[in-house]
Amino acid sequence: MTKHSEYETIDPTAELITTYNELNSPVIDELTEPPSALEFMRFVAKNRPFVVRGGASNWSAAETWNIATLKKWLKGQDVTVAVTPNGNADAPVMTGDGKIMFVQPLEEQQAFDEFVDFVVGQERTGKKIRDVKEVRYAQTQNDNLRNEYSALYSQVEKDIAWARIALQKSPDAVNLWIGNSLSTTALHKDNYENIYVQILGKKHFVLLPPVAYACVAERHLPSARWMRKPYGRLEITTEEDHSIPFATWDPDNPTPAAEMQTMYSILAQPMRVTLEPGDMLYLPALWYHKVSQSTSDEGICVAANYWYDIEFGGSFWPLCNLARTVGTTALQIEPEDIV
Amino acid sequence: MTKHSEYETIDPTAELITTYNELNSPVIDELTEPPSALEFMRFVAKNRPFVVRGGASNWSAAETWNIATLKKWLKGQDVTVAVTPNGNADAPVMTGDGKIMFVQPLEEQQAFDEFVDFVVGQERTGKKIRDVKEVRYAQTQNDNLRNEYSALYSQVEKDIAWARIALQKSPDAVNLWIGNSLSTTALHKDNYENIYVQILGKKHFVLLPPVAYACVAERHLPSARWMRKPYGRLEITTEEDHSIPFATWDPDNPTPAAEMQTMYSILAQPMRVTLEPGDMLYLPALWYHKVSQSTSDEGICVAANYWYDIEFGGSFWPLCNLARTVGTTALQIEPEDIV
Ligand SMILES: O=C(O)CCC(=O)C(=O)O
Ligand SMILES: O=C(O)CCC(=O)C(=O)O
Repeated sequence: MTKHSEYETIDPTAELITTYNELNSPVIDELTEPPSALEFMRFVAKNRPFVVRGGASNWSAAETWNIATLKKWLKGQDVTVAVTPNGNADAPVMTGDGKIMFVQPLEEQQAFDEFVDFVVGQERTGKKIRDVKEVRYAQTQNDNLRNEYSALYSQVEKDIAWARIALQKSPDAVNLWIGNSLSTTALHKDNYENIYVQILGKKHFVLLPPVAYACVAERHLPSARWMRKPYGRLEITTEEDHSIPFATWDPDNPTPAAEMQTMYSILAQPMRVTLEPGDMLYLPALWYHKVSQSTSDEGICVAANYWYDIEFGGSFWPLCNLARTVGTTALQIEPEDIV
Repeated sequence: MTKHSEYETIDPTAELITTYNELNSPVIDELTEPPSALEFMRFVAKNRPFVVRGGASNWSAAETWNIATLKKWLKGQDVTVAVTPNGNADAPVMTGDGKIMFVQPLEEQQAFDEFVDFVVGQERTGKKIRDVKEVRYAQTQNDNLRNEYSALYSQVEKDIAWARIALQKSPDAVNLWIGNSLSTTALHKDNYENIYVQILGKKHFVLLPPVAYACVAERHLPSARWMRKPYGRLEITTEEDHSIPFATWDPDNPTPAAEMQTMYSILAQPMRVTLEPGDMLYLPALWYHKVSQSTSDEGICVAANYWYDIEFGGSFWPLCNLARTVGTTALQIEPEDIV
């Protein structure tokens, strides 16, 4: 292909990342209408993302949802809400004593209208994250749109026809996400082909391909959870005696702590895309994604997504596994040492 | 996934091959009719082969070709023929002094009917390879069906509709292969998606996926060629001062020389498939294939194939490259040392 520096030719991990960057555009493909199953399958084959501008703008959800209608349809419904002090559910957190933990949110049941009033009210104060006591985000990722939020399910597509036809499966989960601009989802990956549909407000995705494994400073972090203490104060409690492998590099932080970057982080070429209401994103399996949000004029951000099981057949999964093993060795991480 | 032995967990190359073997069937998928473009794309996405039994049996070529008709349509036509003493064009050959070379065939122009008479006459003698002076095989792989053999081109499909639609390209080359059972094509891989169509006789494929790189004992071999010496005798002549990376492991040889196997060869699980007249094979890009043949009752074997350029976008190419780099390092091959 092209010339590599001496360093790159001898280090397989650096060569992997730079070859990928040379052969692939850093800019996401944009479609103006939904793909056919075949067109979609071409992207799946390459494990490359795309956005469909306005692909869902004729969905009933996109046309009718607002705070009043959502409150009406979910009247009397309790929902599960993730509560965190800093808007960072399921995220690495550096504690006072300099230890990095993987901290899951406190989960609370709340009446839907109370939850929405909190989210919207907070957004309208215009407060920054350091000035609020807690952030709330409906983000259970447990097929909630077909369960807690089933009253809304008829207003979205049951599944994504072109994805179902191409992948020959129904979605494993259909999830609803409701929050405000103070919530951010930390960089992570999922074992799913993901179709993400923006309904109200905007989502800002930062994306990295699976080959960038060695860039994201994955660490085995002790698992913890935010818990309520007296007077409602939130505190981290180590929950279980096990560790979770999780990316600690933040593509938006230009000066990360030494332990939250690697010698390869500099090679990462994050791809950025903002979803407007009605836009759809194909987020391929195993891609790293960090997601932040901004709200509609009413002060809310609402999205739905469809998770289809990853294909374990073929060479993609074993090869990604190889990239991970080789990257780990190159970084000489002893996962246990870090915990 | 499943449990690995200690050895497999610590050696990324062994883990790659065994994970692949665990997640994929050793038996080729069989279709009974040609796939749609979408069905084909699902196989491309997994980089997995399939055979379509009888997929080309209604082609004019399959219905009308035999020795008499081929001779009629190619009357007066000269063709390029690969000549070797052992039926092994483009193959590693161990010379008398124990050196392994990559030896290309002598290429000669012959009148088509003379060539066919030679091939068929030799087959009918029933002689074994050690009892013949030379073997002839039309196998130029230079788009010959649209050039030397263009008189036959109207009797095959111009391209494979489902492959063209799925891959959004026309074939880079359409090749004709004519020979007898004394020719064998050595294990190798191509940068092409390959649709292989059997017309007369049978082809016996042995297949290995790209992740098996470390099994095939690739070596940088000095490039040589068979040349005619006085009295028509064939002798190897080192042609150019350069080396060619080539697989030296033979999946059919249970007791290979030490330098023609690796510590990983034992992990290879070759997939075998025989193409009958009218069958089509999808041979995915970068798959290793060794091909031997048997003839029709008339004593000839004829096939056509369609090469579509490989897709360099996405993660497949960079990841296969990684598997190769890591495998090479694991084997501690210094390619230059071997030449
Ligand atoms: O919308 C978000 O906050 C995160 C979305 C996400 O992680 C996903 O769809 O997998
Ligand atoms: O038919 C043969 O002898 C070899 C075929 C082959 O190598 C190919 O189609 O790439």
